Amino acid sequence: MTTDRSHEIPYFSEAESAEVVASRTAPDADARLAKVYAALVRHLHAFIKEVEPTQDEWTRGIEFLTETGHMSNDWRQEFILLSDTLGVSMLVDAINNRKPTGATESTVLGPFHVAGVPEYENGGNICLDGKGEPLVMSGTVTDPDGTPIAGAKLDIWTANDEGFYDVQQKDVQPEHNLRGIFTTDENGHYWLRAIKPRWYPVPDDGPVGKLIRALGRHPNRPAHIHIIAAAEGHESVTTHVFDPDCPWIHSDAVFGVKESLLGDFKHVDDAARAAELGVANPFWEVVYDVVLTRA
Amino acid sequence: MTTDRSHEIPYFSEAESAEVVASRTAPDADARLAKVYAALVRHLHAFIKEVEPTQDEWTRGIEFLTETGHMSNDWRQEFILLSDTLGVSMLVDAINNRKPTGATESTVLGPFHVAGVPEYENGGNICLDGKGEPLVMSGTVTDPDGTPIAGAKLDIWTANDEGFYDVQQKDVQPEHNLRGIFTTDENGHYWLRAIKPRWYPVPDDGPVGKLIRALGRHPNRPAHIHIIAAAEGHESVTTHVFDPDCPWIHSDAVFGVKESLLGDFKHVDDAARAAELGVANPFWEVVYDVVLTRA
Repeated sequence: MTTDRSHEIPYFSEAESAEVVASRTAPDADARLAKVYAALVRHLHAFIKEVEPTQDEWTRGIEFLTETGHMSNDWRQEFILLSDTLGVSMLVDAINNRKPTGATESTVLGPFHVAGVPEYENGGNICLDGKGEPLVMSGTVTDPDGTPIAGAKLDIWTANDEGFYDVQQKDVQPEHNLRGIFTTDENGHYWLRAIKPRWYPVPDDGPVGKLIRALGRHPNRPAHIHIIAAAEGHESVTTHVFDPDCPWIHSDAVFGVKESLLGDFKHVDDAARAAELGVANPFWEVVYDVVLTRA
Repeated sequence: MTTDRSHEIPYFSEAESAEVVASRTAPDADARLAKVYAALVRHLHAFIKEVEPTQDEWTRGIEFLTETGHMSNDWRQEFILLSDTLGVSMLVDAINNRKPTGATESTVLGPFHVAGVPEYENGGNICLDGKGEPLVMSGTVTDPDGTPIAGAKLDIWTANDEGFYDVQQKDVQPEHNLRGIFTTDENGHYWLRAIKPRWYPVPDDGPVGKLIRALGRHPNRPAHIHIIAAAEGHESVTTHVFDPDCPWIHSDAVFGVKESLLGDFKHVDDAARAAELGVANPFWEVVYDVVLTRA
């Protein structure tokens, strides 16, 4: 009458706690699940044994996780924010996007990507409301050996000069403001007009915000422009170009910054060149080349 | 204008991920929080590096935690259930209740303890609805050297013969059915009448139930009687007495069983003794002594 398969398994003990728990998994359970669960139990029990939480601390941990769940809904994902601020999202991104030296490195996608945005000719201006300091962005997409890739698509999006994406300010910004898809020409070249984005805080009015403040951290992400670059026969890359002069560049709340993703943002005061590019003078300029590995 | 204190901290890298994250904590943060957070980051990153989750697996992890939060409310605590089924609750209990050899060992409190229940004279019957097989429970509470402790309080509660506590069946069972507080006499002795409890499943209609089924585990707890024993000048102990013949005794869903907590449940067919004890014949008898250490 019993389905108990575990007569040989010892009872729980502090010393063998992780082994006892993991040994309870049935031999015919999904092998990947069994492996992940056993590793989770081993690392989690090692954590508990290292910090020796009091019963009150355990209760506070349960309460923190519960509040994090209750804060999450279709518009707000507090567990992703927890993963981001713990550096876990960047670690998973790094593991899944190991690139050969010289290839453009990846960083987090973030929650503000939108599918189905307008495609522009090179030189198109994705700033639809004329607000902010003009920025001209350009570059070349190449193979690791420097061969230009024609027809590569660059899906680009950015916050405005107040640090908000269009989807966060539907009543204020035009739809698809500061978003667009560009295609490299026969020389692998792209260029567009936008504005210099501002840094912004991740949502910090929930349990994760409270935790990072208690750690003496701030919730800010340094100013950046998002890019997803894709070309036939190549691995896509999801990345950012960061403004190295942003005050938060060394302390991104979600650890997204990599040395290779720092852009060279130049302030240009040149009325003739501004007129030629079709922007107000003075303006900002950033050149950012992308290197895609072959699929 | 910037509060950035971290110019010397390197950017994120897969190799140094945990160190980068932990080094972001401010020097003046609460020392205990900083220690627990650094340990959490180190063990969590080690787990991620060991299992190398795909992006899809990471997403499933986020979804699992979110569902676990959404399942939790004032009446149902799915994160405690997760902690229980991971063996974490028992581990925290073990760490906080290390006892010298010979002292009664602790196990989990569980969610069904109720404060302010009736106090009974020795021999009192806590079964208020007459349902189930009668059980006589007795024992002695002593110091580790065997000295009886008079006036020790035993707070006792148990599920009924269908595996439900009174608080789970408010329309079916009388209030405080199978609950009561007993006090040891001048010889440290206690005794009471109750019924033989049945095993029961932990709530398994949520994400935690789904997970343990996927692992090939069942949700059942072996039949047991709860005790909190307390005496002036002594450490209290929160524990269970388990029925060693229960089919789930080797596979408690929450890992609560310890060898020393197995009771010796005897089936007695003795009409004279039953009459003497005031129970129907046949009946069950369990003797369980409790050893409390000095505070």
